[in-house]
Amino acid sequence: MRDLAAREDLHCLNTATLGYREPIEITVRRVAQAGFRKITPWRQEIEEDHPERASAMIRAAGLEVAAYCRTTYFTADDAAGRRAAIDSNRKALEAAAVLGAPMLVAVVGGLAPSSRDAAACREQILDGLHALLPTMRATGVKVALEPLHPYYAADRSLLNTIAQAIDWCERLDPAREGWFGIAVDAYHAWWDPSLEESIRRAGTRIVALHVCDWLRETRDPLLDRGMMGDGVIDLRRLRACVEATGFGGAVEVEIFSQLDWWRRDPDEVLRVCRQRLATAC
Amino acid sequence: MRDLAAREDLHCLNTATLGYREPIEITVRRVAQAGFRKITPWRQEIEEDHPERASAMIRAAGLEVAAYCRTTYFTADDAAGRRAAIDSNRKALEAAAVLGAPMLVAVVGGLAPSSRDAAACREQILDGLHALLPTMRATGVKVALEPLHPYYAADRSLLNTIAQAIDWCERLDPAREGWFGIAVDAYHAWWDPSLEESIRRAGTRIVALHVCDWLRETRDPLLDRGMMGDGVIDLRRLRACVEATGFGGAVEVEIFSQLDWWRRDPDEVLRVCRQRLATAC
Repeated sequence: MRDLAAREDLHCLNTATLGYREPIEITVRRVAQAGFRKITPWRQEIEEDHPERASAMIRAAGLEVAAYCRTTYFTADDAAGRRAAIDSNRKALEAAAVLGAPMLVAVVGGLAPSSRDAAACREQILDGLHALLPTMRATGVKVALEPLHPYYAADRSLLNTIAQAIDWCERLDPAREGWFGIAVDAYHAWWDPSLEESIRRAGTRIVALHVCDWLRETRDPLLDRGMMGDGVIDLRRLRACVEATGFGGAVEVEIFSQLDWWRRDPDEVLRVCRQRLATAC
Repeated sequence: MRDLAAREDLHCLNTATLGYREPIEITVRRVAQAGFRKITPWRQEIEEDHPERASAMIRAAGLEVAAYCRTTYFTADDAAGRRAAIDSNRKALEAAAVLGAPMLVAVVGGLAPSSRDAAACREQILDGLHALLPTMRATGVKVALEPLHPYYAADRSLLNTIAQAIDWCERLDPAREGWFGIAVDAYHAWWDPSLEESIRRAGTRIVALHVCDWLRETRDPLLDRGMMGDGVIDLRRLRACVEATGFGGAVEVEIFSQLDWWRRDPDEVLRVCRQRLATAC
């Protein structure tokens, strides 16, 4: 068991938790003042043609960038759409490098708009991910594959389990150079009967741990995520299982909550996040 | 490929599709008149102290009962609650036998109200299912384990994939006597990257096939299921995959749709179901 100070070093705030209501400079100031050491910003907050300014500001606030969110969906009905996604994701990798983010989070996309062929769309995604490798090598930024809850398979992600992410890592990175890793998100993964077995099997492929909670009476499958401790997930057990693989990275709070937390004072949200990271995770 | 007449013999209507708005005798008449040969009724429609009346009426209409819906959730915070669920499910098996249903569909329950321990709750469920065996043997009614979409893990079912259902069948029925089988429901299972592999592996364990569709723009994760052909599921491929295991049972339409189909004229709903069974499945 790490001591408390070391564990606090791991506290990371994904800015989605604050609902993107304020400019990044204000968010960064609040996050640093609340005692977080790490931050994961979203692309809509960063001017990607000139990420240097945001990068300098984040460093000046004493924060490290844990990751950068996120890829454009790789699936599309035509080749032009798929190429455009790859171009966008190359640009994200370059911005991530300037921000000092070691990884870009991949939310890979659901079925292409006119498709019912999940297998074919998964191949589109794998092709798109593979096409990023030269930029990944050039920038040094990895890709963290984030399996999303199966609820989002149609419209957001055809990558839905940790087991599937392991298979994809093995296909994309057979020599285990480490360019592709796995982001384990409690909300997306908690239900999986193979969760602990998959985490053990993923081992050092795990590069990120996201926490929030699944509310028993969920009112919206996208924007009603709960604060850690308010729902049904055994977060302490999950964290211990992930850390048993050797993972020692950030514990990142990511709460999409239009119905509750996005309506509250941002400093209150950050204070509760910090408290629950200590007591519920 | 079977000829069309033989395939029409397989058309089954799960009465949930009509929203339980009318007494069972009216529903049975409509379903038979629409050309269905099989029906799966729900417990709230059947007087379980005297199921003989409903049974006779269904037979008189020329319908067979494909299955009976469904078990009471097996999970509970205390032993009394778990015993009550088992008693209720024994009664359901006895009613199913009178109705001539070869199987009771098992929707097994989510986390017990005060629990965050999914593994312990899954054991509660397995214990409850195992306790039904004497009644199953006495009545001749099997249990069809229905994996539900992971969206329902907290509040409805901790059985969420076909692979998990196979494991449970192997535990509950190691000698393969056939008392426990698997109901494959397109809505619950379509997203699974291991779907086809799991179906092949399940083989003759598969005892039921439920169809509806997943709407790309789903407005409600429980009550906005789509008509076959209106969503993203490749139902023909799924059906072919299930039938390749040797399955020759009913193709059962089960559509929970408070937002659309439950508001329409029941005869129109049944007509569209029959048409889509022929063209989309």
